[in-house]
Amino acid sequence: MGTLRQDATTNEWVILAPDRATRPDHAHGSRAGAVRGPLPAHDPACPFCPGNEHQTPPEVLRSPDDGPWERRVVPNRYPALGPNGQTDRRGEPTAREMDGVGYHEVVVESPQHDERLDEMPLDRLAGVVTTWRDRYRTLAADPRVKAVVVFKNFGERAGTSLVHPHSQIVATPVIPPDALRRYAVATRYFDDTGRCVYLDLLDRELDAGERVVAERDGMVAVAPFASRVPYETWITPRAPRPSFASLEDAEVQEVAGLLRDVVGAIRHGADDPDYNLVVHSAPAGEESKPFFLWHLRVLPRIVTPAGFELGSDMSINCVAPEAAAIRLRETLARVPAH
Amino acid sequence: MGTLRQDATTNEWVILAPDRATRPDHAHGSRAGAVRGPLPAHDPACPFCPGNEHQTPPEVLRSPDDGPWERRVVPNRYPALGPNGQTDRRGEPTAREMDGVGYHEVVVESPQHDERLDEMPLDRLAGVVTTWRDRYRTLAADPRVKAVVVFKNFGERAGTSLVHPHSQIVATPVIPPDALRRYAVATRYFDDTGRCVYLDLLDRELDAGERVVAERDGMVAVAPFASRVPYETWITPRAPRPSFASLEDAEVQEVAGLLRDVVGAIRHGADDPDYNLVVHSAPAGEESKPFFLWHLRVLPRIVTPAGFELGSDMSINCVAPEAAAIRLRETLARVPAH
Repeated sequence: MGTLRQDATTNEWVILAPDRATRPDHAHGSRAGAVRGPLPAHDPACPFCPGNEHQTPPEVLRSPDDGPWERRVVPNRYPALGPNGQTDRRGEPTAREMDGVGYHEVVVESPQHDERLDEMPLDRLAGVVTTWRDRYRTLAADPRVKAVVVFKNFGERAGTSLVHPHSQIVATPVIPPDALRRYAVATRYFDDTGRCVYLDLLDRELDAGERVVAERDGMVAVAPFASRVPYETWITPRAPRPSFASLEDAEVQEVAGLLRDVVGAIRHGADDPDYNLVVHSAPAGEESKPFFLWHLRVLPRIVTPAGFELGSDMSINCVAPEAAAIRLRETLARVPAH
Repeated sequence: MGTLRQDATTNEWVILAPDRATRPDHAHGSRAGAVRGPLPAHDPACPFCPGNEHQTPPEVLRSPDDGPWERRVVPNRYPALGPNGQTDRRGEPTAREMDGVGYHEVVVESPQHDERLDEMPLDRLAGVVTTWRDRYRTLAADPRVKAVVVFKNFGERAGTSLVHPHSQIVATPVIPPDALRRYAVATRYFDDTGRCVYLDLLDRELDAGERVVAERDGMVAVAPFASRVPYETWITPRAPRPSFASLEDAEVQEVAGLLRDVVGAIRHGADDPDYNLVVHSAPAGEESKPFFLWHLRVLPRIVTPAGFELGSDMSINCVAPEAAAIRLRETLARVPAH
């Protein structure tokens, strides 16, 4: 017998069905590390490798400023949204259109073609997090921008075929559906209780303990009560921080440390799956509102969403978050961070 | 410059970015027919092939009743939800749980292991549609059931590795998020205008004509204005029909004909992609409400949703629905239905 669990941040129910993990066609969903194959440290054909800087659009940020770069931010060569245009809506109510105005940037996270996120020296990974925050702040300052989405696609099942370590930032001229819904639920909850639903949820998780994956002073990593996918993990501040833009330099190190722990534990504890990272944050202009809490989600792509998920927007999760947290904690204890 | 289009049935914006179809890593998203490889007409190792009926749970429906079967409905061997349990909610507001009560059935659509949906004789395909409707009616009659989702996963990228032609039906004890949102938007629209948003949208599409893929007397196939994925196509009645349960026998033939046309046109016109089918319908108990319109969606899995889509629930569609409709109409004219 499975269970339904409600995610209090969306009021949506998730189906937990651990028995389905035993089905014969489940195996095809996970990808062993061996399939990934070794990569060279430098690939002359890779547009993100040093020496091929001319193959990308001109960089908008480079770090350090002088000498060999550790990180570059460049406009996406095939952008979903572009900086020219306005946000006025056109057309009738059943056929509204607007310019595809916004930003779409690529963060080249390392000069090293084969470097995995969990293998990066902590100060350089902290540099990546700082770059995400700095670009977030810059793009959110454009008055046409309503939300900034920072994300990473690792592996083909996660939507990329470029293996060079990189992440992306998209700034949209509308509030995305996911953010709009979370905003509605969080404001409703705040009006009902005077509290932040995310912090209440986190307090419960810290009291229960069973789904906590790792902790730092000001940050915590949790496999949430109503995880939508196996090994879903949230990295979140313990204190009111509505927007990722407000991330302080001292917090960056903690985020980087937890990110390395979580990504490494999923790699070594869950058969090295492809994964996405996504930063959820308050919409632009709502950075100071106490009802939201920014958080970074790690979403392994072990199971392929099928017709049921597309048609209902309900998830069927075949790994209980309690079991996922145990596995990730055990892996962290076994595989020491280098 | 891309465009944003609003889907009037959800009020959500979709990013149309046709230029992204040219990016080098796009190709990996589509799968040529050649990759699929030939299948035997009968596979002794397949649990859905004739002779292996004992490998599935006992059938709940078989057609015809006597002699060799053309169709079987069996409980899913690894169900997401099961028939035992109640719908009372337990736990605090931030940690609500309930029994995973519901139904999860498999419709074996044909005895022939390698039969593709668009190759099926029309009367047998109509039989599949009738079976979907009949099981929908039966499952929706359980008072614990709040919604019935009929869907099909074709190909590994669509979430299945079982190649024998089959579809699935899941009956849930809660209204799924997608249905709840559509319901809210459709009732709001009805209260504002006194009309059904789906029928208004369809009227516009029929007037414009450019996104219409195929027509029958009472049914039409359209690539909708705000398509979320390349070659997304809706098959929908032209007249008020809130629920799939109300599908009449005379309409079944039209649905089957359009389904064969659309699936065949996508196969031959869009490089034989994996795809999902999903039936959207009014929630159980709301079958007579005039603000909804059931429809069947065909969703090719050409592009992998990545971190941006997971984090925002916005889609980036790299094929304009007008271009998709032209391609599908041309393919239909070129490849005659057999």
